[in-house]
This record gives sequence, structure tokens and C-alpha cells, in this order.
Amino acid sequence: MKDSMTLADAFQNCKYPVVGHGKRNVRVLLESLEGTDGDTASDMYGKGDTIERFEAKMAAYLGKPEAVFFPSGTMAQQIALRIHCDETGKRKVAYHPLSHLELYEEDGLKALHRIETVLLADRDRLIRPEDVRDLEDDAACLLLELPQREIGGQLPPYAELEEISAYCRSRGIRLHLDGARLFEILPHYEKSAAEICALFDSAYVSFYKGLGGVAGAILAGEPALTERSKVWKRRHGGDLISLYPYVISSDYYFDKRIGKMAQYYEEAMALAEMYNGCADTIRTVPAVPASNMFHVHADVSKEALESILAGVAEETGVGLSAWVKALDDGGSGFEATIGDRYAAVPEDRLRSAFSLLGHKLKEGGYRA
Amino acid sequence: MKDSMTLADAFQNCKYPVVGHGKRNVRVLLESLEGTDGDTASDMYGKGDTIERFEAKMAAYLGKPEAVFFPSGTMAQQIALRIHCDETGKRKVAYHPLSHLELYEEDGLKALHRIETVLLADRDRLIRPEDVRDLEDDAACLLLELPQREIGGQLPPYAELEEISAYCRSRGIRLHLDGARLFEILPHYEKSAAEICALFDSAYVSFYKGLGGVAGAILAGEPALTERSKVWKRRHGGDLISLYPYVISSDYYFDKRIGKMAQYYEEAMALAEMYNGCADTIRTVPAVPASNMFHVHADVSKEALESILAGVAEETGVGLSAWVKALDDGGSGFEATIGDRYAAVPEDRLRSAFSLLGHKLKEGGYRA
Repeated sequence: MKDSMTLADAFQNCKYPVVGHGKRNVRVLLESLEGTDGDTASDMYGKGDTIERFEAKMAAYLGKPEAVFFPSGTMAQQIALRIHCDETGKRKVAYHPLSHLELYEEDGLKALHRIETVLLADRDRLIRPEDVRDLEDDAACLLLELPQREIGGQLPPYAELEEISAYCRSRGIRLHLDGARLFEILPHYEKSAAEICALFDSAYVSFYKGLGGVAGAILAGEPALTERSKVWKRRHGGDLISLYPYVISSDYYFDKRIGKMAQYYEEAMALAEMYNGCADTIRTVPAVPASNMFHVHADVSKEALESILAGVAEETGVGLSAWVKALDDGGSGFEATIGDRYAAVPEDRLRSAFSLLGHKLKEGGYRA
Repeated sequence: MKDSMTLADAFQNCKYPVVGHGKRNVRVLLESLEGTDGDTASDMYGKGDTIERFEAKMAAYLGKPEAVFFPSGTMAQQIALRIHCDETGKRKVAYHPLSHLELYEEDGLKALHRIETVLLADRDRLIRPEDVRDLEDDAACLLLELPQREIGGQLPPYAELEEISAYCRSRGIRLHLDGARLFEILPHYEKSAAEICALFDSAYVSFYKGLGGVAGAILAGEPALTERSKVWKRRHGGDLISLYPYVISSDYYFDKRIGKMAQYYEEAMALAEMYNGCADTIRTVPAVPASNMFHVHADVSKEALESILAGVAEETGVGLSAWVKALDDGGSGFEATIGDRYAAVPEDRLRSAFSLLGHKLKEGGYRA
């Protein structure tokens, strides 16, 4: 606990944090409201100009007929899967063992919707076309998360996505996109969001990951699905009298950062190269990032890596991560996500930081 | 449709709207943020100073050990009822036929939680102790809404509340308070919120009714219930990374208006007296309000009342209601809720408006 506090504090106080956009504080909301006229009417239970215009904008961007704003992706995705089940008359959906629904939602899909799940692929690799061909006829829907966050934001080759999509269509299996980080992968695929979403029956996107907004999500698809999703939004308690604090900020940060995804992606590749080049005992997963994020794995204990990263931050002013977690193999790791901060780190400082990181990893006599 | 637009427009453009606090626009949020330091950290999935301090403040105010902030009352109440069912091992809850859960939630309680409901009392009257004594042993929980909004905000005598509470305790039936308008009834009962909540096992309150905030709700109760409610909040998709836009505004409007509830109540009684004195064909339900709200029933058609109220607004500048709905008995009605606006209406204008209202109701030759 003490070491962890020390790393968190060292990151908090360092001059050059490398990851993220900035602190998650009230200024994020205030900045997004600066250009907003106080006379702008609130949305009322999902109706009104502000929310409907943003929904139409995102529907167009994602290339779907309709889009509905939700307070959270947890709510939007459970509802999408529920509707796919109801429409197909089946009660089973498939997704990756490290899906958000499996790890972070307290089994809401099962507890609230009584939907059974099939875990496809192994924990440490992506779902492949051959996994999908193993699906039985009772599967209503397959959820694909692009990129797969919990394994460092890996992405399948685009041709595999097309293959999975064609197979699912041929078998009447609905395909849902967990696009929590969809914006972030467009530079890698060199595709538009609409091109990717065209492979899916429904798509969810988030506004507080790569875009750095306050909170909020969009679910896009055919009108039959989006209309039903509004009924379920009401049932879940998400059809608030006023969602405009999230709508306005989501719209603002979409406009502010959607054009910066290629920059973040290139910066992530540059940063990953520095990790992979600094010592044999540290590497990135994937080796070459496919988005603005990747994971870092080190062959040293959690406590050792915390101490090393805190030392690097104190000695060079460069904060590489605010936290470290223990890995099952005895090593340790953390997630790196590139945002606005990276461009403000002087390159020589960054080089010094990695030189020191490599030195500390080697001198520690840690197992190679 | 045309007449309805005309009344809405007449209300929108009138100089002296009588009901409500003001327009629901972005200024409501901006005002609440004026005193907030941009450096204030966001809450993170229900943790952090801003949200925890407000929860503690509301727990103390409601006299319960713990309180949890929710995005909506729909979510908070379904979850409270679910937990009462799970803890008692029963699957049935009882409430009024015009409960919010029955009218406005698309049957979320049944669709998501598979809880059966028992409708107590008739649609046009309050639940009485004798209704509660009819409950069978399979009822986990009784929900009481104070005041009962859909019948004009009626309230039972306090002694009946105590009787119902004692009976439920003796029978192991949990008692949940739908306190969407709890703050508004304290002057009538001359009780503290904590005294009233002490009769209940759990209580929900809202921040955008009498308090006029943006959105948000609190669920208060014993730690076993509140801790479980956080798990269900996550399952519902309501455990957002950042709820601070609602937390900060709820806190602000609580402080701004909690001391004005007695004033609103007195103003509601004065306004109701004017309705009841102006013509035989119009009256309030209840005859004497028990809070800042009441309903108005008139023995004229919806269209006729819309036209009369639009005329009053245009001729006197006093807007009594923005809308009218048809009632089952062939007459029409609307809801009146007192907020900050009432005090800004000059008394002579109000008298002129009611004189004209009475005149128009009489001259119209409408059925008495």
C-alpha cells in the first residue's frame, strides 16, 4: 500500500505525465460548457434539440440509421444484447472471456436479463473466425470488442473481421460492436467508423476514453433496435429528465479530439518502441500498438516496478504510469493510453527517462 | 394540437408564470457550478470526496446510517425493492395503483427484476391502514409515496403513517418511502425528514422536483441495503465514472431551496384558495394542499380550458398552466407546483387573473 501510494503520488506530482489527457476534474465539464448559451433548453426524457441533434450526428458518423444517447456503455450494451436476444428468440450471447460485461458489470446481463453467455477464445488472445464457427445455433449474438482492451488493445486483421461478419450474417447470428475505443482504431485500420460499423448490426461508442469527455455513450443501429432501446433505457432508470451535461460535453470532446486519433496512434507506437528497446525484462503487448493504447509487462514484481517507476518520475520528472498491478506469471504490468499529455513531454526528457528505466531494470538484478 | 400549442406558447411568453422555479435550461447547471473550483476532482465510479460528502450529508439529513447517490429515482427504487425482496426471500411488493413504478417506468420492476406487484387502494384515494392489513404474508415490501403525486399530492394523517409503519414492522413487511417530494411535505407534517424516514426501512429522495436541480436521487437506509444497492447500481449501468454534474447541482439546489419549502407550501394554499373561490366549475384536489403542489379540476372540456387559460395569460400576463389534460369524467385538469416564480407575481395581477378566469368559466355557459 505504501509503495503504491508513493507511485501514485510521484505520478501526481511529476512535471511530465506521459499518459492520458489530463486530470479528471470539474474543469473538464466547465471547458465543454464555455461556448454553451445558458438559454439552451434541457433535453426532457430523451427529447429535445440538444440530444436529438447529437444522436443524429453520431448516427451519420457511424453510418447507422439511428442512434440513442445513454448515460453508460454498461446500460447501452446490455440493452443491445437483450434486444438481439428478443428479436431472434434466443437467450445466449457470445463474447471474449475478458469482455467488459464479464469483468466489470457485476453480471448485470445475467442478473437483470437472464441471458446466458458463451466465452469465446482464450483469455490471452483475440477471437478468431474459427472460434466463431464453433458457435451453436442457439447463439443470438456475438459481441466483438475492438480493440480488445484487456489484452493491450489488440486488433484482428480487417479481413478476419469481414470474415466473421459474413459468417454471422449467413448463420443469422447478430453481431454487436463494443466500440468503447472505436475512434482510437480508425487510423490503424485506415477505415471510417461507418465502414467498420457496416460489418455490425449494432454498435456502442464511448465519449470518455480516447475522447476524454465526462461520461456518456451512444448505441447505433436499425430503428427497430434503437426504438426498443429507449424503452429499456427507461426500464433501467437511464432515461433521465436531463442528460445534457453528458451530451454537451460528449459533443464538445468529440469535435475537439476526433481529428487527433492518428497522432495518438503514432505516439503510442513511438512510446511502445521505447519500452521494447530499453531492457530485456520489459515489453509491450501488443509489440506494436494498434491504437492509442498498449499494455506493458515487466519480469519484476509489482513492488519492484512501482519503486522503479516512482524513481524515474522523481529523478526525470517523467511519469510513465500512476499504478502497477501484479500479473499471474509473477511479473507486473500496467496500461498506457496516449492522450493530449504526450505531446507536451520534451523528447530529451523522455529519452532520459527510458535510459534510466532500462538502467534501473538491469541494475536491480531482477530475473531476466 | 393547435390549441395546446397556443396555451404552451401563451404560457411561454407570459410575463408572470405562476408555477415552477424557472425554465429548465443549461443555466440551471451553470449557476450550480459557479462556486465550484475547476480543480475539484471527479468522483470515480461512486468513490471520491464530492459524492461521498454529499451522500453523508443526505444520510444525516434523512436520519439513516448510509445514503447512495443514483442518477435516477427509477433506478434507485427498483433496486431498493429488489433488495427488500431478496433479503426477505419474497417476490412481491405493494404500492398505489398510480405509483411512478406503475405509470412511468415501462414495467422495469417486472421486466428486469421479475417482481410481482399488488396494487393497494383505489386510483383516486390514498392507501389506508385497512388496505395494508389486507396484505398477504408473501409481500416483501410496501412502497408509500408521500405525497401521492397523481392525486394532487394528498397526504395521510401522520398518525396513519405511524400505524402503517408499526403494522408492517410487526408483520415483517418492509416499508419503503417514495420521497420524490419528501422535502415538500415537511412543513405540513411539521416533522423533520429524519422523523418521517424513521418510519421506513429505506427512503428515496429526488433533487429536481421541489429543489429544482438538474437530475439525481439518493437512496438511504441500513448499510446492508446501501452496499447491495451499489452492486445493483453497477448492474443497471448507473455507476458512472463521473456523476459530479448531478451531485454538485443537487447539493447546490438542496442548500438553495431546502429552507423555502414552508413558503412554497403557504403559497400553494393561497393559490388553491383562489381557484376554489373563483367559480363553481373549478376546484383543487386536494381542497387544501398538503405540500407545494395540487391538481386543478374543471367541469369544462380540455379544449375549452386551454382556450380560457391562454386568454387569461394573454390578457393579464399571468400564466396559470402550460398544459391541460382531459379527465375521465369529461372535464379537464392540470397540476400546479409552486416554486420560486410565484413570489414574483404581483398580487393584484393574480387577483385580476382569477377574476378573469372566473368570468370566462361562467360566461362560457359551460356545464356547472
